[in-house]
Amino acid sequence: MSNTFGKYFSVTTFGESHGPYIGVVIDGCPAGLKIDEAFIQDELLLRKPGQSKITTQRKESDHFEIISGVFNQTSTGTPITILIKNEDHRSNDYDFNKDSFRPGHADFTYQSKYGIRDYRGGGRSSARETATRVAAGAIAKLILKQKGIEIFAHVYAVGKIFNQQLPNLSIEELKTLREQNVIRCVDQEIANQMIQNIDEVRKNGDSIGGRINCIIRGCPPGIGEPVFDKLQAELAKAMLSINAVHGFEYGSGFEGTTKLGSENNDPILEGTNLKEGIISDTNHTGGILGGISTGQPIYFNVGFKPVSTILKEQETVDLNENPTTIKGKGRHDPCVVPRAVVIVEAMTALVLVNLIFKNSNSKI
Amino acid sequence: MSNTFGKYFSVTTFGESHGPYIGVVIDGCPAGLKIDEAFIQDELLLRKPGQSKITTQRKESDHFEIISGVFNQTSTGTPITILIKNEDHRSNDYDFNKDSFRPGHADFTYQSKYGIRDYRGGGRSSARETATRVAAGAIAKLILKQKGIEIFAHVYAVGKIFNQQLPNLSIEELKTLREQNVIRCVDQEIANQMIQNIDEVRKNGDSIGGRINCIIRGCPPGIGEPVFDKLQAELAKAMLSINAVHGFEYGSGFEGTTKLGSENNDPILEGTNLKEGIISDTNHTGGILGGISTGQPIYFNVGFKPVSTILKEQETVDLNENPTTIKGKGRHDPCVVPRAVVIVEAMTALVLVNLIFKNSNSKI
Amino acid sequence: MSNTFGKYFSVTTFGESHGPYIGVVIDGCPAGLKIDEAFIQDELLLRKPGQSKITTQRKESDHFEIISGVFNQTSTGTPITILIKNEDHRSNDYDFNKDSFRPGHADFTYQSKYGIRDYRGGGRSSARETATRVAAGAIAKLILKQKGIEIFAHVYAVGKIFNQQLPNLSIEELKTLREQNVIRCVDQEIANQMIQNIDEVRKNGDSIGGRINCIIRGCPPGIGEPVFDKLQAELAKAMLSINAVHGFEYGSGFEGTTKLGSENNDPILEGTNLKEGIISDTNHTGGILGGISTGQPIYFNVGFKPVSTILKEQETVDLNENPTTIKGKGRHDPCVVPRAVVIVEAMTALVLVNLIFKNSNSKI
Amino acid sequence: MSNTFGKYFSVTTFGESHGPYIGVVIDGCPAGLKIDEAFIQDELLLRKPGQSKITTQRKESDHFEIISGVFNQTSTGTPITILIKNEDHRSNDYDFNKDSFRPGHADFTYQSKYGIRDYRGGGRSSARETATRVAAGAIAKLILKQKGIEIFAHVYAVGKIFNQQLPNLSIEELKTLREQNVIRCVDQEIANQMIQNIDEVRKNGDSIGGRINCIIRGCPPGIGEPVFDKLQAELAKAMLSINAVHGFEYGSGFEGTTKLGSENNDPILEGTNLKEGIISDTNHTGGILGGISTGQPIYFNVGFKPVSTILKEQETVDLNENPTTIKGKGRHDPCVVPRAVVIVEAMTALVLVNLIFKNSNSKI
Repeated sequence: MSNTFGKYFSVTTFGESHGPYIGVVIDGCPAGLKIDEAFIQDELLLRKPGQSKITTQRKESDHFEIISGVFNQTSTGTPITILIKNEDHRSNDYDFNKDSFRPGHADFTYQSKYGIRDYRGGGRSSARETATRVAAGAIAKLILKQKGIEIFAHVYAVGKIFNQQLPNLSIEELKTLREQNVIRCVDQEIANQMIQNIDEVRKNGDSIGGRINCIIRGCPPGIGEPVFDKLQAELAKAMLSINAVHGFEYGSGFEGTTKLGSENNDPILEGTNLKEGIISDTNHTGGILGGISTGQPIYFNVGFKPVSTILKEQETVDLNENPTTIKGKGRHDPCVVPRAVVIVEAMTALVLVNLIFKNSNSKI
Repeated sequence: MSNTFGKYFSVTTFGESHGPYIGVVIDGCPAGLKIDEAFIQDELLLRKPGQSKITTQRKESDHFEIISGVFNQTSTGTPITILIKNEDHRSNDYDFNKDSFRPGHADFTYQSKYGIRDYRGGGRSSARETATRVAAGAIAKLILKQKGIEIFAHVYAVGKIFNQQLPNLSIEELKTLREQNVIRCVDQEIANQMIQNIDEVRKNGDSIGGRINCIIRGCPPGIGEPVFDKLQAELAKAMLSINAVHGFEYGSGFEGTTKLGSENNDPILEGTNLKEGIISDTNHTGGILGGISTGQPIYFNVGFKPVSTILKEQETVDLNENPTTIKGKGRHDPCVVPRAVVIVEAMTALVLVNLIFKNSNSKI
Repeated sequence: MSNTFGKYFSVTTFGESHGPYIGVVIDGCPAGLKIDEAFIQDELLLRKPGQSKITTQRKESDHFEIISGVFNQTSTGTPITILIKNEDHRSNDYDFNKDSFRPGHADFTYQSKYGIRDYRGGGRSSARETATRVAAGAIAKLILKQKGIEIFAHVYAVGKIFNQQLPNLSIEELKTLREQNVIRCVDQEIANQMIQNIDEVRKNGDSIGGRINCIIRGCPPGIGEPVFDKLQAELAKAMLSINAVHGFEYGSGFEGTTKLGSENNDPILEGTNLKEGIISDTNHTGGILGGISTGQPIYFNVGFKPVSTILKEQETVDLNENPTTIKGKGRHDPCVVPRAVVIVEAMTALVLVNLIFKNSNSKI
Repeated sequence: MSNTFGKYFSVTTFGESHGPYIGVVIDGCPAGLKIDEAFIQDELLLRKPGQSKITTQRKESDHFEIISGVFNQTSTGTPITILIKNEDHRSNDYDFNKDSFRPGHADFTYQSKYGIRDYRGGGRSSARETATRVAAGAIAKLILKQKGIEIFAHVYAVGKIFNQQLPNLSIEELKTLREQNVIRCVDQEIANQMIQNIDEVRKNGDSIGGRINCIIRGCPPGIGEPVFDKLQAELAKAMLSINAVHGFEYGSGFEGTTKLGSENNDPILEGTNLKEGIISDTNHTGGILGGISTGQPIYFNVGFKPVSTILKEQETVDLNENPTTIKGKGRHDPCVVPRAVVIVEAMTALVLVNLIFKNSNSKI
């Protein structure tokens, strides 16, 4: 069941990039949740292709249809199924990779593993699949909203251009800041540099990597399970399951490995209480101790490799294992991070809802 | 079932640091495997406390007993249960944290989540639990050995001291190099610097972080599942489930996010074939594409925070939520990485065996 | 994930009786399987409503569409999703049970559990859901066919009319016999009595129960897991998950409980071998020992209660918990067994494929 | 993970009949539960061998040790592990089945599936494994007790001797009645007939089957999941996973298949309410509708085949597939039902606790 995420709020995605639909079944959504379709649509728009010149020019309206589990705009406790139609699939664009394997893509590994692959647009390995994650994540967010939990992700690096600061603002305000530019960075000036960088890379037929930071506010203490299903372990798996992600760190992360314990430990200060969580003047631990939330904000970083499709000639082999060359066609993003922001948020929401439901039976 | 790892070779660990035993049940080990007890013991010795002055002085023989699933030194297909006796538990050492919460530890979060905790030695949140992972990982390694798959982890950073090179040697030779020093670094000179650094930190009552690199050789192409259970996603979860780990990256990792696609893509070269995998002159993708192994070596890095127990006064609160201070007692490691090397290998072995078994039914 | 059956060949069904679609996602179908759409359609026709005067007059063409996981008529290893459109839903027929609870139906329990229900046609609790099981079961049968495993179910009792004999014929021949009458009994004379009985019951506005026997031929020894996931335990769960089923027995079943061990034990005779299985002159054990197949035919019985919808006034309460009466409307079957034959077969196929895949790693 | 039962209150059993221990790990027991060890011991005594002349003469004290998850007699939320020592294993008694396969036992199927088996006392396939289920079930019962849910099983048939009546008494009183005879039937006179019958069978070196009825009182409405994980489906799986069980029926069961809908439907009467459940003057549906509890008592029957070990010569083959004969040795029960009563209750408790925990998130 490698197409299912979560044991409590179980999300099963299906569909290929150029099939008639992609979709998702959500099993485990509690009954009685108002399903705000406009909100789901807004979330999908954040991921939608064709938003600006720095994203792919594939045009998808990404309209969705809920075909089960909702009655009178309310969840009924039965599986919620969402279909998204694939509209602008120019499958002929992909004849070039029918018989040879694009470097950096899953063409070779699918062919090796399965002996067959739907090569059109990358089939199931296409990032188009993540639209269904965003739809499911939107419903998870509706549940979290009721619990006062907010998630916010933003681009903090494109190539070597970094934004080190996150202003001390409400999530609402941060979202407004972020949406003022097409790269989704909260600093407008750095955003402009990032956009300029991507634009140059794009004109060059090349691509570039980037990084996303994500914060969770309002998560009560006690969420996350000891040992194997630690909160950070579930987040790491969720993030590394996103196409192009090559790294995850939380709290003080890799940088923290260079510190002393006396520098990295967070003091537990007055005001701390078991119901609301730890009060501290630092948060190197990233809001998690022993795999369980402390009540402080949770934060982590996710690193994305440069998009593999580039408009340059590259060496490869064909289906008969003979050397050849290949050059990207189709419509692709020169940098994946602006569209990935909402995917990171969606996967975070799925992790949290699952762990919150799991926590229901932690005490008698 | 947050104490279980893996759906095919399922490993369930149990036990508290100062209970009578810790242990593990392995469900899904195929019948007919010769269970080499000496090998399991050797693996446990690599993690054992009290190995040198840079590790905790707790003395545990870490002898184990297999109480089910093995008959005539051979697995029978039924659950294999391994018990490890806790010997040197000086529970009185832990009265200091009975009524207050150690910063950086799981004391607070367990108390908040469960309303009760076994405070002795950290109970279940103690890294002692990882001994059972090593025992299970040893059996997983016996399976991998039959398939020609080798795993090797080593310390490549302590604090700010880095070893950037891994000599081009066999795993056998690398292991010999690594075991020539107590920090488990393959460069003896850098190892000495690391050890000296830890020793200073230790004398100062402090602790320090570090990093481990792990490589997998001999993994055929096709291992790993698309979408949510990608090979890198499973590895990330496995690594972040290890105590003190704050980061995971594979292939070109976070560094790769600063690169161009044309720099980061690996050409697919002549000699590549679907059965044995991709041949390339680079491997920025870390031996994985689309979540599935390419046949190239797989490699990743894991970052460990400085050990939270330090022999310095720290601010905290007590069970009644009143401010107090606490100072580490008990016997602890100033730096966790040398003992964590075999834990990283064990978790890697568990990931691989599960994905290999899952792959059995990928084609008709 | 109570809408998912199976951990290896995982079948997730969704959809309500009067929603736009019902459907199913199959995760875990191996790549390379020829997907014979005509066969799937034939299986659906066996369950289709409106086949004869002894089944409901609801008209559904039960045409299906495969929207993912199949490329060039071949499975690709990605999730296979099948949609079936709901056509003839006269939702107004169901206004009568909007505000009160039909006895014998799930109206009350859904309302109690979820606080909301899609009352139209029973929503998710409608037997219409089983069409998706039949579609998934058809694909499972395609896998089993390749392994030489055949499944055959037939009606052996309607009310008090029993057919005790199953002629010693090939599955092919048995199917021909069975399809010679609308009740799906292999004895034509008894079939006529059954049909006559149902017809009388129907005219009377009443309904009646019945029983189905199922046999599996060609299953090699070794299939099924010890302890909790015994072959008979998985079959029992699968059967009791079918609407209206109240009983399961295998081998000598309940009757066997009255026997002596010396009567009930099956001798193991010459010709028995570990690869092909047990040879015996009896098979009271129903082809299973210790939860694992013996290589002999597997057989079991399933009991169905009389359909709950009857065209008679019955006492009930309304949504405000006030007493009222209700009388069935809508189009319903007077006896469920003829249409349930293929559902029993489908669930059996799902059980077998899952256990066969699980068995892949039973030996090293 | 075929040795694990339940996804929420997950019970993993391990151990062979003649190994050093059998045991169980319970993952998912909420923290804060008082672990009443005397109660667990009492439950184990109900299953213990050597209770009377109609049960096996194997002597096991069935003392247990809790080695994890409990602190100050209270569950901590971490895995609870219980070990039971195997004491009276006369492995030499089993040399007779080392090289040949006992009819009716799992010897052949284990050997076929795994290529190896621990033949001593049946190894893992021995009913000794069920002691660990009883221990886990006892803890599940402690949880149910807090929720006012009671389970009671009793023998209602041995061979052809039936007890059709269950007096209208409290569970407490029924238990007292049941424990007044060694067969665990609530009617003393019929109990005597049953005991006499078993005694004759035993003297004859033979064995006999029987049946157990189980009732659940105090279960609120809403427990059980639609579609595949229906309450009756989970119960059926649980029961069919018990050694020697060949049949399960609930409510009106197989007998109900001969009825008309107008006879079998239960009217929903005044007093019915969504919180406390259905009031009716009948309960043919066995307290379950659509897979979900109605609030009425739940009841079901379980059929056990005659014990396979008999002290008579039987035909079989040896490991080399040559014909031979075998005659039961070792100490065995002539009829399994008296000792199985508590096993049926234990498995029922495991089903209920899992479904109750699952239900925690059914509504927002």
